[in-house]
Amino acid sequence: MARGKNPERTRARILDAAKRLFLTKGYDGTTMQDIVDGLGDLSKGAVYYHFRSKEAILDALGDEDHERQSPAAILDDPTLTGLEKIRTTFRANADDLEHMQLMGIAYPTLRDPKLLAANLDAWRTTVADMFHTLILQGIDDGSIATSYPREAAELLALLTNYWLVPTFYPATEDELRHRVSCLASICAGLGVPVFDDDLIDRVARAYATLGADDGNTADTAERKEPR
Amino acid sequence: MARGKNPERTRARILDAAKRLFLTKGYDGTTMQDIVDGLGDLSKGAVYYHFRSKEAILDALGDEDHERQSPAAILDDPTLTGLEKIRTTFRANADDLEHMQLMGIAYPTLRDPKLLAANLDAWRTTVADMFHTLILQGIDDGSIATSYPREAAELLALLTNYWLVPTFYPATEDELRHRVSCLASICAGLGVPVFDDDLIDRVARAYATLGADDGNTADTAERKEPR
Repeated sequence: MARGKNPERTRARILDAAKRLFLTKGYDGTTMQDIVDGLGDLSKGAVYYHFRSKEAILDALGDEDHERQSPAAILDDPTLTGLEKIRTTFRANADDLEHMQLMGIAYPTLRDPKLLAANLDAWRTTVADMFHTLILQGIDDGSIATSYPREAAELLALLTNYWLVPTFYPATEDELRHRVSCLASICAGLGVPVFDDDLIDRVARAYATLGADDGNTADTAERKEPR
Repeated sequence: MARGKNPERTRARILDAAKRLFLTKGYDGTTMQDIVDGLGDLSKGAVYYHFRSKEAILDALGDEDHERQSPAAILDDPTLTGLEKIRTTFRANADDLEHMQLMGIAYPTLRDPKLLAANLDAWRTTVADMFHTLILQGIDDGSIATSYPREAAELLALLTNYWLVPTFYPATEDELRHRVSCLASICAGLGVPVFDDDLIDRVARAYATLGADDGNTADTAERKEPR
C-alpha cells in the first residue's frame, strides 16, 4: 500500500526485518512470507517489488555491509603504511559485530556449491589483488619486506576467508586461536607480520561467532539457533 | 558382442581408450560415442554396460590411479619416518607421469561447482587426516617438531591440492617454482620441512604440466589441446 511513497525507507525496513529474522530463525528457516509477516504493513507483492528473492535480500545486505565498512577509507588513508592498512582492515572486520553477524548468515549459504565456487573465485582474484596492492605499498614504504608478495596476498585471501572459518573447518574458540596463531606465524615468516597478539585474539573471537556447520542438512542454521 | 566373455579385460580396454581420448581431445571434447568409435569392436550398449557415463569412466580412472599409486605401501613402510613418508608421497606423485596426466584431465572438470565442493570437502577431511596421521608419526619418531600438527596437515592438503594448481591459480613454471618455494618456507617455518630443493623442482615441474584453465568456456580443454 505504501509502495512508491518512500522506496528507500521501505527497502531499508525490509532489509532490517529480514536480517533480524535471519539471525533468529536462520537464513534457511526464514521464508519471504516470514519477512512479509514480520513487517506487518506491507503486502507480499510490495516486498517482491523491492527484492525478487531471499537471495537478493542477502546480496543487498552484503552490499550494504561492504559500503558501511568502507574499506576505501582505510585503503586511501595516506597516514597508514601498507602493513597498517592490512592490519586495520582485519581489525575493523573483527570488531564490527554487525559485519560478523552478517558473515554468520552468509557463510552457511556457501553450502551451495555454486555460491562457494563464486566466492572462491573472488578470493583468488579481487580479494587477493587487494592484498597484493597493499603488500606492494608496504614494500614501497618499508613496512613490509617479503620475497613472496603475490603468494602472501593469495594466502591471506584464501586462508582468512576459507581456512579460518569454522563453517568449513569446525573449531572451538581455543582451536581457532591456535589456528590464527599459526597463520600469524606463517605471515611473519613470509615477511608480512599482520597479526600481533592483540589481533590474533580479536580475530579468533570474531571467527568463533561464525560457528560450525556440518553442511549436511538443510535445517542446520535453524538447529543452531537455540544456542 | 564380446560382452561378458572377459569383462575385466573389456573394462580395462574402455578405460585405456577413454584416457587416450581425454588426453588428445580433452575431457569435454570427448563423447561416449568417440570412446565407442575408438574401441572399434564394441557396441555403445556394451560400453554403457560397463560405465553408465563419461564421469563414471573418469571416476574409475581415478580409482585405478589411486590403487596403482598404492600410498598404503608408503604409509605402512616401517623403514620410513613420518616426515619421509610425506616427502615420498609428494615425490611419488610428482614423478608419476601417468598420475599427473590424469590430474590434468581431472582438474578442469572441477569447473563444475559440485565436483569442486566435493573435492574441497575431501581435502578438508580425508586428505588432511592422512597428513595429520603422518605428522603425528613424525612427532613420535622425532622427524618432525611442530606446535601445529593439525594446522600443518590441513594446509598441506589444501595448498598442494588447490593453491599450487595452475588450473585455479594460473602460473608459469617459474611462477610455480616460486610458489612451491613459498610453501616450502611455510612448511619449514611450521616445523614440517617437507620440501627440499630437489622436491621443490620436481613438484613445480609436475604441476606446470597441469596447465591453466580460464574456467569460463565449455571448450577450454579442447582449445588447449593444440599446444
